[in-house]
Amino acid sequence: MSAPRTSKVLYGGDYNPEQWPAEVWDADYAAFELARIDTLTLGVFTWSLLQPDEETYDFTALDAAVQRAVAEDRQIVLATATGAMPPWLGKNYPDANRTDFEGRRHVYGQRHNHCPSSPAFRRLATALADRIAERYAGTPGLVAWHVGNEYGGPDGSCYCENCAAGYREWLAERYGSLEALNEAWNTTFWSHRYTAWDQIEVPSALSEHWRGPNHTAFQGHTLDFRRFMSEALLRNFRDEKERIRAHDSGTPVTTNFMGTFRPIDYHRWSEHLDFATWDNYPPGRDKHVRMAFTHDLMRGLKDGEPFWVMEQTPTITASRDVNPVKRPGVLGLWSWQGIAHGADAMLYFQMRAARGACEKYHGAVLDHAGRTDSRPFREVARLGEELEQLGDAVIGARTPAKVALIVDWDNWWATEITDGFNRHVSYLATVLGYYDAVWQAGAQADVVPMTADLTGYDVVLAPQLHLLKGDIAERLHAVAERGGTVLTSFWAGRVDESTNAYLMDAPGPLAPTFGIRVEEIDSAEPGETNPVTMDLEAGPVDSDASLVMELIVPTGAETIGTYGADFYAGTPAVTRNTVGKGHAWYIGAGLEATGLRAVLLQVFGRHGLVGPYADVVDLEHAVRERQTGGRTERVHFLLHHGDREVQVPAHVDATDLLTGAAVRAGEPLTLDPTDVLVLLEV
Amino acid sequence: MSAPRTSKVLYGGDYNPEQWPAEVWDADYAAFELARIDTLTLGVFTWSLLQPDEETYDFTALDAAVQRAVAEDRQIVLATATGAMPPWLGKNYPDANRTDFEGRRHVYGQRHNHCPSSPAFRRLATALADRIAERYAGTPGLVAWHVGNEYGGPDGSCYCENCAAGYREWLAERYGSLEALNEAWNTTFWSHRYTAWDQIEVPSALSEHWRGPNHTAFQGHTLDFRRFMSEALLRNFRDEKERIRAHDSGTPVTTNFMGTFRPIDYHRWSEHLDFATWDNYPPGRDKHVRMAFTHDLMRGLKDGEPFWVMEQTPTITASRDVNPVKRPGVLGLWSWQGIAHGADAMLYFQMRAARGACEKYHGAVLDHAGRTDSRPFREVARLGEELEQLGDAVIGARTPAKVALIVDWDNWWATEITDGFNRHVSYLATVLGYYDAVWQAGAQADVVPMTADLTGYDVVLAPQLHLLKGDIAERLHAVAERGGTVLTSFWAGRVDESTNAYLMDAPGPLAPTFGIRVEEIDSAEPGETNPVTMDLEAGPVDSDASLVMELIVPTGAETIGTYGADFYAGTPAVTRNTVGKGHAWYIGAGLEATGLRAVLLQVFGRHGLVGPYADVVDLEHAVRERQTGGRTERVHFLLHHGDREVQVPAHVDATDLLTGAAVRAGEPLTLDPTDVLVLLEV
Amino acid sequence: MSAPRTSKVLYGGDYNPEQWPAEVWDADYAAFELARIDTLTLGVFTWSLLQPDEETYDFTALDAAVQRAVAEDRQIVLATATGAMPPWLGKNYPDANRTDFEGRRHVYGQRHNHCPSSPAFRRLATALADRIAERYAGTPGLVAWHVGNEYGGPDGSCYCENCAAGYREWLAERYGSLEALNEAWNTTFWSHRYTAWDQIEVPSALSEHWRGPNHTAFQGHTLDFRRFMSEALLRNFRDEKERIRAHDSGTPVTTNFMGTFRPIDYHRWSEHLDFATWDNYPPGRDKHVRMAFTHDLMRGLKDGEPFWVMEQTPTITASRDVNPVKRPGVLGLWSWQGIAHGADAMLYFQMRAARGACEKYHGAVLDHAGRTDSRPFREVARLGEELEQLGDAVIGARTPAKVALIVDWDNWWATEITDGFNRHVSYLATVLGYYDAVWQAGAQADVVPMTADLTGYDVVLAPQLHLLKGDIAERLHAVAERGGTVLTSFWAGRVDESTNAYLMDAPGPLAPTFGIRVEEIDSAEPGETNPVTMDLEAGPVDSDASLVMELIVPTGAETIGTYGADFYAGTPAVTRNTVGKGHAWYIGAGLEATGLRAVLLQVFGRHGLVGPYADVVDLEHAVRERQTGGRTERVHFLLHHGDREVQVPAHVDATDLLTGAAVRAGEPLTLDPTDVLVLLEV
Repeated sequence: MSAPRTSKVLYGGDYNPEQWPAEVWDADYAAFELARIDTLTLGVFTWSLLQPDEETYDFTALDAAVQRAVAEDRQIVLATATGAMPPWLGKNYPDANRTDFEGRRHVYGQRHNHCPSSPAFRRLATALADRIAERYAGTPGLVAWHVGNEYGGPDGSCYCENCAAGYREWLAERYGSLEALNEAWNTTFWSHRYTAWDQIEVPSALSEHWRGPNHTAFQGHTLDFRRFMSEALLRNFRDEKERIRAHDSGTPVTTNFMGTFRPIDYHRWSEHLDFATWDNYPPGRDKHVRMAFTHDLMRGLKDGEPFWVMEQTPTITASRDVNPVKRPGVLGLWSWQGIAHGADAMLYFQMRAARGACEKYHGAVLDHAGRTDSRPFREVARLGEELEQLGDAVIGARTPAKVALIVDWDNWWATEITDGFNRHVSYLATVLGYYDAVWQAGAQADVVPMTADLTGYDVVLAPQLHLLKGDIAERLHAVAERGGTVLTSFWAGRVDESTNAYLMDAPGPLAPTFGIRVEEIDSAEPGETNPVTMDLEAGPVDSDASLVMELIVPTGAETIGTYGADFYAGTPAVTRNTVGKGHAWYIGAGLEATGLRAVLLQVFGRHGLVGPYADVVDLEHAVRERQTGGRTERVHFLLHHGDREVQVPAHVDATDLLTGAAVRAGEPLTLDPTDVLVLLEV
Repeated sequence: MSAPRTSKVLYGGDYNPEQWPAEVWDADYAAFELARIDTLTLGVFTWSLLQPDEETYDFTALDAAVQRAVAEDRQIVLATATGAMPPWLGKNYPDANRTDFEGRRHVYGQRHNHCPSSPAFRRLATALADRIAERYAGTPGLVAWHVGNEYGGPDGSCYCENCAAGYREWLAERYGSLEALNEAWNTTFWSHRYTAWDQIEVPSALSEHWRGPNHTAFQGHTLDFRRFMSEALLRNFRDEKERIRAHDSGTPVTTNFMGTFRPIDYHRWSEHLDFATWDNYPPGRDKHVRMAFTHDLMRGLKDGEPFWVMEQTPTITASRDVNPVKRPGVLGLWSWQGIAHGADAMLYFQMRAARGACEKYHGAVLDHAGRTDSRPFREVARLGEELEQLGDAVIGARTPAKVALIVDWDNWWATEITDGFNRHVSYLATVLGYYDAVWQAGAQADVVPMTADLTGYDVVLAPQLHLLKGDIAERLHAVAERGGTVLTSFWAGRVDESTNAYLMDAPGPLAPTFGIRVEEIDSAEPGETNPVTMDLEAGPVDSDASLVMELIVPTGAETIGTYGADFYAGTPAVTRNTVGKGHAWYIGAGLEATGLRAVLLQVFGRHGLVGPYADVVDLEHAVRERQTGGRTERVHFLLHHGDREVQVPAHVDATDLLTGAAVRAGEPLTLDPTDVLVLLEV
Repeated sequence: MSAPRTSKVLYGGDYNPEQWPAEVWDADYAAFELARIDTLTLGVFTWSLLQPDEETYDFTALDAAVQRAVAEDRQIVLATATGAMPPWLGKNYPDANRTDFEGRRHVYGQRHNHCPSSPAFRRLATALADRIAERYAGTPGLVAWHVGNEYGGPDGSCYCENCAAGYREWLAERYGSLEALNEAWNTTFWSHRYTAWDQIEVPSALSEHWRGPNHTAFQGHTLDFRRFMSEALLRNFRDEKERIRAHDSGTPVTTNFMGTFRPIDYHRWSEHLDFATWDNYPPGRDKHVRMAFTHDLMRGLKDGEPFWVMEQTPTITASRDVNPVKRPGVLGLWSWQGIAHGADAMLYFQMRAARGACEKYHGAVLDHAGRTDSRPFREVARLGEELEQLGDAVIGARTPAKVALIVDWDNWWATEITDGFNRHVSYLATVLGYYDAVWQAGAQADVVPMTADLTGYDVVLAPQLHLLKGDIAERLHAVAERGGTVLTSFWAGRVDESTNAYLMDAPGPLAPTFGIRVEEIDSAEPGETNPVTMDLEAGPVDSDASLVMELIVPTGAETIGTYGADFYAGTPAVTRNTVGKGHAWYIGAGLEATGLRAVLLQVFGRHGLVGPYADVVDLEHAVRERQTGGRTERVHFLLHHGDREVQVPAHVDATDLLTGAAVRAGEPLTLDPTDVLVLLEV
């Protein structure tokens, strides 16, 4: 099952009419009309209303909300309401609350923070999902089921006795014997050989950790606990989904992910969702490349199928230290970026600003005064109009990517909990660095798991591929053999799935492909750099390495870049090996953007994958295509993230889907800041 | 009842003779003579001496100290000795120790840290106060009772089960029903509807909070808990005061406050104190404006009645990371500043440096060698001489202020626990910013609660008046109507007492007065600025806005200042509305000092409230006045905080009370750094 | 008993064959041959292997390791295997795990973290040591017993009920009565008079502390707890040593210290070790002076007897945030530095890199590929060759020092837990500052405890001698009287062993010697400075004071240096008193390096102690000497820490022990960076 094949990009979002009296509902729907809002997510935080105590269910409030939405002919995304527990549950079942990394049992409060192993939570959440599915299956306009909410937040872990017991069972199943576990975790080190299962404690601040979750005595132990915890939360999702399926076999079921959320391995969850959705609240500044990456990561969860943006804010994200408004035009630009990268729905949190509590200043379609003439509302309404204009032009369309970027949660976890490297290296920063070079080159890319089928790609980027799983070494080799290009970087090929080192030269099983041996790993303080000079086809390129500098001995590869300083000046920092008809690049240094972009431009050039506007800074070009009646329909998105007008030639003949205008290849296109063009290639 | 009407400014402070053998007492009193020390605070930390176990009281040590003070003809401030518990109490009654924000029950240690809800503490502290009051009521020279000590320190909160139970009772009384509480806290948000009182947990790191006390899921919940906790501690004070009153109906009762101490709402305490006192340990540098503010805040607790400085240090404050000595002259200058702002007593902690423990290097009148020829002692003695010279000239006199600055603990709490704004804004920094502009203009000002009678003021400043209580909107409007000037700033008029948003245009109920509508609130990172140009009567003024920039739509007000940058360049940042005969200013931006000073100079100029030395940087002018036999006696203080000599003309005919010299208006007055003039207007 | 008198500097280190299959052992020994590795430390982390449960001992693994080492003719350092507990111990005896400063009982994990007071740990560790000693006493090649491992890490403290009970017993023994304890801790302050022993809580975050271990209400209490905890851990060591002695009366027993490790008072431990050893993992950059200091501190533990470096890394230390490799030549340079300062063994952690867990990237003689042609291995092998070349030339030789630098754990603790000073002052930074000046001057120095015999020294440096013990004042005076030079600095002579202030002018009992009175202590923020000009024999020297500026009144001393700024400009910052035939210097300011070096050059010049290469930056000269057959054999080490070639004249006739070449005094010696010369004076 995949995302619903709708007649247009769905538009709307979280709606909580239960917080408001009836007269407000009328004003709400009047505003929805103005803004072309067609889809409402209902019920997310209603558990305490629907079940005031363990014995009593009362669906009055949700019935009313659903009935009104049906009457108003809206499409409905219906929540199972289990994202936030009711007070009585936390009070009556203390073990439904999490025990934190410091070993403290919490009491009732906040949301998204149940213990995944709590028998009471599991029983009661499943029962609620069952009743809701039974009651609302078949509701007209019901397009999807929304289970829980943002699973895992805030930190995705519980360290209670129930979780410890579950962890031990999970370990027993994974390893079969203590002997195998002792081997996997290398417990002979530091006298940790376990002789009974119940000796295994959860790895926390009270046992194997110091300084926080990234400093552990046993990487294998901590990594396994992360895997277990991700699966324990998944089991909660699956429990509820099973009850939905008991009553409704046809409506897709999903939950909203949080993009680059480290605690949960979304790759291990994805097969259990019918389609992917995520909540887009980009942190920091200069967010457009990061958002592009995250859209692609989410699209990669379901092999490139369209996904939904389940939440975004019309203006302010309330939870930051500093909460600026979205600048004019940015809402539209970023929404279109999501669609360009594969989103078939663009939804908000939320329709109307809550009166009280911590999100009352979070952006909403309607503010506390309910104004429909404010700048934010006008931008929401403008986008609604444009989406209506777009119609179904891209629904179901996919990204025609020949580049794959491998992202892997095991590597994310493993590299950040490892001693001896450089604690200032962030896995996400590394992969974002490579993605940035892809984005700058305008190559269409997929962000995929390590297990993905790589046969369709010309280029496979696998930076920081520290931990190897399955036959990844063979599959990367095959890509190169058949003429493709593969690339990895520092710390690659060091450990197996248990984080035990390969007892051979690094990069271990990858060494034959990359034609090198890494003899030492040097690390530098933030701010220190070592110049790297590369001899590329376009000429010499000077860049800087920071944080990591590996000392490389080529065993077949040619040296492309060399260090300029320190005792290893003149030795290789970047190498390329020829494998069959293809290439295998190794970037042994923490190469900065200039260097990465230069390398990838050459790589993409070799495969004809450089985008048409690669030389226009901040102008993004993204493509979606689908087969319709044996014909390929291809839609090009031009998204201008810069702050000055640019003029570029059209690169195809096309129809502008928002204006209806015809565009001829070569004709000048002018884009002001935040401008978007949606061009159907003709 | 008010502060004792003494014959001079009292001089002395905390004295702990119980820590010393008898021969030291003789040296002490000899030094007191040298320094004209006339007042001693006795008994503050004697509980463990007076009551070695629950059954035994032994007043030997305190009897001796009191008898000697009486014999030496000193005035006595007598403590109830409950500021620090004895070890046996913490050991025998674990619940007398606090449970902290992290949920950890503490054990015995430190001081000022009892649980306010502990039945054992309440019973035993009250019993001790009762016995002390009974024994020492009527002691010759007894000028005041000193209950507890610095209530609330260090963080003013306990999160134990007794406090939770007390909190639930307090809530039941406040709201009457769970329905009303659910409404007040907007619990439908995040599925928090309570269906039984015992489901309510204290808001802590284990329930509704993350990242610390300022990040809560439910602002109303956390705000109510702060109110409850402030009242729970007040109940401890009231318990003891009641016992004192049972034995002594005439001597004023007080406790020492800590100035700008966020955890306790001193405005809600003040009616229960007979007069206000506080401990002046200014943090950081350039402290004189902040101290002036805090003196005025403390004076405002009792409607402008004189207060006491209960503690200050002769030289080093021991508890900072860096503990510099007070520079020469500063002790006198700062002491005179306190008197200029309304203090009728100037007391030290402490008379003799403790031999051991954490305050042994805290400044004291007598150091470990007991020297009376050291620089600090000489400065103490010089001030003693001057106070003797001053006599009763200002006792009971008040500040003739026509400017009111509203400070409100509910707003302090509410704005700092709210998401969606800017976490870098500090309520105290905002009000200090406005106070600084008042101080620079030399206007005499009161710092008052939101409930204060505003009818006597020409100007009422109410910056950051986010949360509105009672009829404040009407009363501000009335000030303007009758010709006064009112002012508020960003975030004003947003929420009611429960922190639920007003469902109308901001600034809510204040909007008619200020003649504007705020459409959006933008926030900026620290260090980022947006230029604001104001068109003032004195000409255009360029300033900068930082942290907060509101987007304002005038609905009647005129635009005084506009933003210079970003997408709202050219739109209003500062407005003024004409209301009846007066004005209502709205400062929508985080305006920096230059801008605030320019605005307030114009405002004060309109009302003739600019001080005579407003153009002399760092020269403070403060006035106290009283009616004596139908005549107004007015004393002017000139306090030179700068580091270079200044010469200014006298602005009135006067007698210099410290030299006896006559001063004629217009005559040049020369002040060296730290110089003080005390001029009785003639 | 002292360190074993071996035939050469021992070379090797920690070896964990139990982690590897038999074929790896063959490769290991082949590599040991290549690198001349002659000594193996066995068994450190084998407890869980040797005792899989409480009832079962199984020495198979250790037997095999020992037998192979014997067969290979290696010398053996045998561990008692109690450095890391087995899982069953932590699980079955929860009290064997520590309770931390926050009051949290930990569960099993990590290592070096047993509760020293746990009856189960004490019983089981002692039993294991007993069995190991019984089994392996008399093993051929056994050169030393290694008890536990790095006692105290990570923070050296447990706060459980068993420790609390032990603390109370220790206090009762120390003080005899509560009256004496109340006096020592000055408990009358803050109402802390104890009336029963069980009222005393351990000083932790839950009792007397705030902001962490350095902020305590009662310094005496916290200081005593540190003393108790150091002794409680020592008792664990002594328990095991006693069992070893029951089976082996002749082999020296030691444990590995951690150099400048604050939690444990190594001076109070040293008499119980037969010889000192330490693990050299220098933090930060520019480590050579700090390492020199630490070697001297460790040598000072046993009155100057040779010590061992029990661990160092061939390349990477894995536990830092950033883990650079040791630069080429540095391994040799630093190893020789250790030998130059008195080490008779140079051992690594470890022989082969662990396959998994947190130290798998820690440097090792053999990497994961087992390479013997890598740069790190080649440097290890080169050093092995050189040590073989050196033979027994320095075994047992001592440092001929005439300078003593007093370091004292009580002062370290006391000054860093004291309020009222400057929290930015670090005791270690102060003593390292003075040591740096010694090192720059090339004076041979001992780093000694306050109790050391001072009669042999010409110069005694006692910086920051805040807390005085025993007759130190008299002994310092005597050094000066007989013509020597003594020196102390700010904060000196303030408190007794309980940290109660001396009730007299500072520097208390030291005042007669130094001829001054300190009237005030001023403190400054980091980065602020006050210029100090000194009038030295070599001419005027300008330097800066930072952090601390004392206001000094000479009472006999002459003023050498004066402040240049602030209200005490022109007053003394540095003084010198003439005492008998000698001098007593007082450095009242936080004098920076230029100033300290100038003062100490003058001091050492007076006594003829300036080294031959004091004017050559980064060239270290260290001497070891011994009596052999009535003759003094003197070996000079020249160690070049700089990064450019230097040329210096030989200062004695000598034989180069590494090349066999003859060297004539005056002949030019050329040293490249990292070069080392070992010259036997002839």
